[in-house]
Amino acid sequence: MTATLTEKKMPEPRNGVDTPTLFATIKAVGAQPELAQFRFRAINRWQQGTHSRTRIQSFYGAGGEQMHEQEFTYDADHPAVLVARDQAPTPVEFLLHALAACITAGIGTIAAARGVTLYEVESTVEGDIDLQGILGLSDSVRNGYEQIRVSFKIKGDAPEEKLRAIIEQSRMRSAVFDVLTNGVPVTISVNAA
Amino acid sequence: MTATLTEKKMPEPRNGVDTPTLFATIKAVGAQPELAQFRFRAINRWQQGTHSRTRIQSFYGAGGEQMHEQEFTYDADHPAVLVARDQAPTPVEFLLHALAACITAGIGTIAAARGVTLYEVESTVEGDIDLQGILGLSDSVRNGYEQIRVSFKIKGDAPEEKLRAIIEQSRMRSAVFDVLTNGVPVTISVNAA
Repeated sequence: MTATLTEKKMPEPRNGVDTPTLFATIKAVGAQPELAQFRFRAINRWQQGTHSRTRIQSFYGAGGEQMHEQEFTYDADHPAVLVARDQAPTPVEFLLHALAACITAGIGTIAAARGVTLYEVESTVEGDIDLQGILGLSDSVRNGYEQIRVSFKIKGDAPEEKLRAIIEQSRMRSAVFDVLTNGVPVTISVNAA
Repeated sequence: MTATLTEKKMPEPRNGVDTPTLFATIKAVGAQPELAQFRFRAINRWQQGTHSRTRIQSFYGAGGEQMHEQEFTYDADHPAVLVARDQAPTPVEFLLHALAACITAGIGTIAAARGVTLYEVESTVEGDIDLQGILGLSDSVRNGYEQIRVSFKIKGDAPEEKLRAIIEQSRMRSAVFDVLTNGVPVTISVNAA
């Protein structure tokens, strides 16, 4: 029995996560913390009106410059109801995507580490925003979301409490959840010459 | 001369912004503030490992349910150097896209409102993150970005100071800048039945 339980706790590949290699990588980073320093980048160009386009490809991490396997391009715009051309979602909708995707990435990984096979993870994210802020109609209304709600549905080969604990652990280690709930210093520089 | 100056200040269409309609819309919202209540949504499904996919289409605003003109779909993943399959950018990179796109949308609009024709707006956004946090290697390192830097290059038919002031006004009214710098309450609910 003890041997079986121990075996079950070994980090075998699961949920599409190469758990042994991931654990080895985390151990390597623990021994050489400078490998954990990452710098992500995005380059955005205005198209017209509220429409812009972002390219994402290079980043720094694991001790050197890295490239995504391809360049990714994303547009953003405002919707027709805000007198724009709706070429893409609004920037604030991308925050909801980032939040759901970050916690969900953690869920896949943590479930694998805990020996849980997932069948399904779906989340709906909603953000409430009062546009009187950004439209300059009220100085007492904030510009951004007043609150965000995430609703997860999860299915896997583990009891409900274990599945809930996986989501909670992912929330506790989510980079996007941290940034959105705690904020981050943002500096802006301008070349207008 | 005075007439000419006044004319120049009239909000004519510019930069792809239908300024007269936008101003009329803002006036209408000012008279009926419930029109300013928006709720944005995203639905995310786990694919495998750290890879998930988000759909964005419907939102509430301007007094009713709205639909983007099409459904938008975005993936997110972790890169190969983090033992994943790099099917898409990381969730934290989408935060950089959202930030650049939000301030840039404001720049296009505010420039139009101020009678400035833009030739070019480009921004590079960088975020520094120490992965010792999310990898569970340190409890004193935060999970998210430690700082974000945005560097704008802007060209238009106005003096440098006026172009700088447009960017500053956009920052002051940016929903994403507000959320990222000040944080927002996020609640998570789970259905694991």
